Amino acid sequence: MGLVVQKYGGSSVADAEGIKRVAKRIVEAKKNGHQVVVVVSAMGDTTDELIDLAEQVSPMPAGREFDMLLTAGERISMALLAMAIKNLGHEAQSFTGSQAGVITDSVHNKARIIDVTPGRIRESLDKGNIAIVAGFQGVSQDKKDITTLGRGGSDTTAVALAAALDAEVCEIYTDVDGVFTADPRVVKKARKIDWIAFEDMLELAASGSKVLLHRCVEYARRYNIPIHVRSSFSGLQGTWVSSEPIGDRKVEQAIISGVAHDTSEAKVTVVGVPDKPGEAAAIFRTISNAEINIDMIVQNVSAASTGLTDISFTLPKAEGRKAIDALERNKEGIGFDSLRYDDQIGKISLVGAGMKTNPGVTADFFTALSDAGVNIELISTSEIRISVVTRADDVNEAVRAVHTAFGLDSDSDEAVVYGGTGR
Amino acid sequence: MGLVVQKYGGSSVADAEGIKRVAKRIVEAKKNGHQVVVVVSAMGDTTDELIDLAEQVSPMPAGREFDMLLTAGERISMALLAMAIKNLGHEAQSFTGSQAGVITDSVHNKARIIDVTPGRIRESLDKGNIAIVAGFQGVSQDKKDITTLGRGGSDTTAVALAAALDAEVCEIYTDVDGVFTADPRVVKKARKIDWIAFEDMLELAASGSKVLLHRCVEYARRYNIPIHVRSSFSGLQGTWVSSEPIGDRKVEQAIISGVAHDTSEAKVTVVGVPDKPGEAAAIFRTISNAEINIDMIVQNVSAASTGLTDISFTLPKAEGRKAIDALERNKEGIGFDSLRYDDQIGKISLVGAGMKTNPGVTADFFTALSDAGVNIELISTSEIRISVVTRADDVNEAVRAVHTAFGLDSDSDEAVVYGGTGR
Repeated sequence: MGLVVQKYGGSSVADAEGIKRVAKRIVEAKKNGHQVVVVVSAMGDTTDELIDLAEQVSPMPAGREFDMLLTAGERISMALLAMAIKNLGHEAQSFTGSQAGVITDSVHNKARIIDVTPGRIRESLDKGNIAIVAGFQGVSQDKKDITTLGRGGSDTTAVALAAALDAEVCEIYTDVDGVFTADPRVVKKARKIDWIAFEDMLELAASGSKVLLHRCVEYARRYNIPIHVRSSFSGLQGTWVSSEPIGDRKVEQAIISGVAHDTSEAKVTVVGVPDKPGEAAAIFRTISNAEINIDMIVQNVSAASTGLTDISFTLPKAEGRKAIDALERNKEGIGFDSLRYDDQIGKISLVGAGMKTNPGVTADFFTALSDAGVNIELISTSEIRISVVTRADDVNEAVRAVHTAFGLDSDSDEAVVYGGTGR
Repeated sequence: MGLVVQKYGGSSVADAEGIKRVAKRIVEAKKNGHQVVVVVSAMGDTTDELIDLAEQVSPMPAGREFDMLLTAGERISMALLAMAIKNLGHEAQSFTGSQAGVITDSVHNKARIIDVTPGRIRESLDKGNIAIVAGFQGVSQDKKDITTLGRGGSDTTAVALAAALDAEVCEIYTDVDGVFTADPRVVKKARKIDWIAFEDMLELAASGSKVLLHRCVEYARRYNIPIHVRSSFSGLQGTWVSSEPIGDRKVEQAIISGVAHDTSEAKVTVVGVPDKPGEAAAIFRTISNAEINIDMIVQNVSAASTGLTDISFTLPKAEGRKAIDALERNKEGIGFDSLRYDDQIGKISLVGAGMKTNPGVTADFFTALSDAGVNIELISTSEIRISVVTRADDVNEAVRAVHTAFGLDSDSDEAVVYGGTGR
């Protein structure tokens, strides 16, 4: 029996009852002979309440002090969890990010982990203790200031510790049973995925699946740490994410892993761009200078008569205003007619490693959308993903249609099987 | 203009409005040319809420994890305060006890400060910043664990930092106007004291005055740091506590500084103790082994006929059960007839350096109590204090009678003046 890292999210430790339930679960793992390191998020809505307080004293809370504030949340949950475990007769010690050796850069509010030196954790484990670590936080290498890792940071803390401690597995406990073939709130027949490869999970995470964040999966893939996403409210097996199926689990990689969707983006179209070298560069340099991340980019075929073309891209709705302002300010330099902004769009993505060798997948995807009467506005592909942009209103229907078409529904006899040459 | 340390209690920073008000006050001090270090407590009821949570997961929360939990409160208030100051256009940095160099022993929940190494604070001040420090917390020298300083710990943090930074003054901001000649809730005519010597303040604190704790005053006296206790809700001068009156303030030391009272104690009487050497030692060794602090001790004159005596002592009510149990367990070893326990007592103390040279004070004190019909059960004296134990019901009346008798009432013409030989 080796070392396991368990991570519990805010909904699992929302109140004293939740903390006691989680404590029992941790003690079980210890009794089964594991060394146990637990990463915990702030209780329930604590972080939102702290943000709310911050906004009452400062219009744009940010930087060093905001990090100092937010990290209080995990301090509370980890100390309570350690107490609850002691109360069950086992020894537990809690550690802040700094005490746990989570070393980051100095970018407050979205720091990146640059090293993990878990000497104190190792020492505590060797004494037979359960180690409880505050998620989401670290300490900056140069200034020794408290930093936070940004959204989903506790998952990253867990995976980083698992890598540094050479853990058998990083268990991510949450309020759902695992990763599904589609969002179960949209697709009632969505199935829990037993195993998924890192690459497919990365594409799902990038395409709107919210169970695991891209950054955490990327970290796990780099250090080859198996992740087991599961519910803290049941004893069921969840979803394993790893390079190969674990142990004696005979799971074949599915051709299609799942369907993800995302309605948090908007589309900007730059109309009447001269079709000459350097134009796209000028547009996206402007966007990048404004520190805006974009997702899909599509350039229309140029109209021969005018020598002008349109360039569209998608980006988070929250960044829309900033992008439009930046482009308008540089209108003369770039040279375009006008801008169109549309935040009533949705994105549907089909993800699966099998796409590489099954050219029929793309055609089936478009057919399914067409049969459902869904109009496609933009298309973007990677080796193992196809994404389309549609009207936001069409998204749920489109996801269900695609899910059914690819045999992913839970009462289907089996998933669609492609021959080596597609069909 | 030198360096000032300001300490704000939980009631001063109870909500966002309070934090903004305090931020303005701090910025004023900075604008007046001071270097400013601020020590802050947890907001309002935060600490009580955290204790409540802890009791829900663990019946007797204590030790390392309890300290980790409680220190979250000050992290929140200090980060918010730093943000609020920045919002007023001034630079502020917050520091945990550990970052501020507050080094303690390893006794969790009531650690003692053993060193203060404020290098980071000094550096921050030299850059022109306002430094905000979490009160009540430190880091243990040997294990580098987070510790808390126990009740009133933030005041001690403030005085300790003032000493380490060689501050001009340590300002303790609270929700009252200063130290009064008696508790204003009991004595409507109580007067605010403009200046009081460390020694008198120590006796008042030991006798039930709650504005400043004994430990903090003791620390200030040792390092000769003037304390200015004042309200954070007004601009009024409060009470200066120091070895000598400050600057050009022509304040003569009053003969009587004030009247303190305390109804938090109980009385234990050990009945029928053989009047022979070693008996008192046996009793108080038993109490001390149970880690109970006692206050007054009185031994009755032995009855010649029986050779037996009674010994009474007072102690915090909360410790009463423990003391009785410890004595009962050692009944045979000590040798006594029975125990009496009485928690309906109160203590009234008259404090003043002038007592040393004015023997009439004691007689006047007893006369005032007698005129008010108050019966005295125990008496204890120090060089500058007389305390009596009475029925709890008599305490308020007794305090008012003594306050009036010694001319302390705010509409008296003047305080009673004694000649050198008493009267």
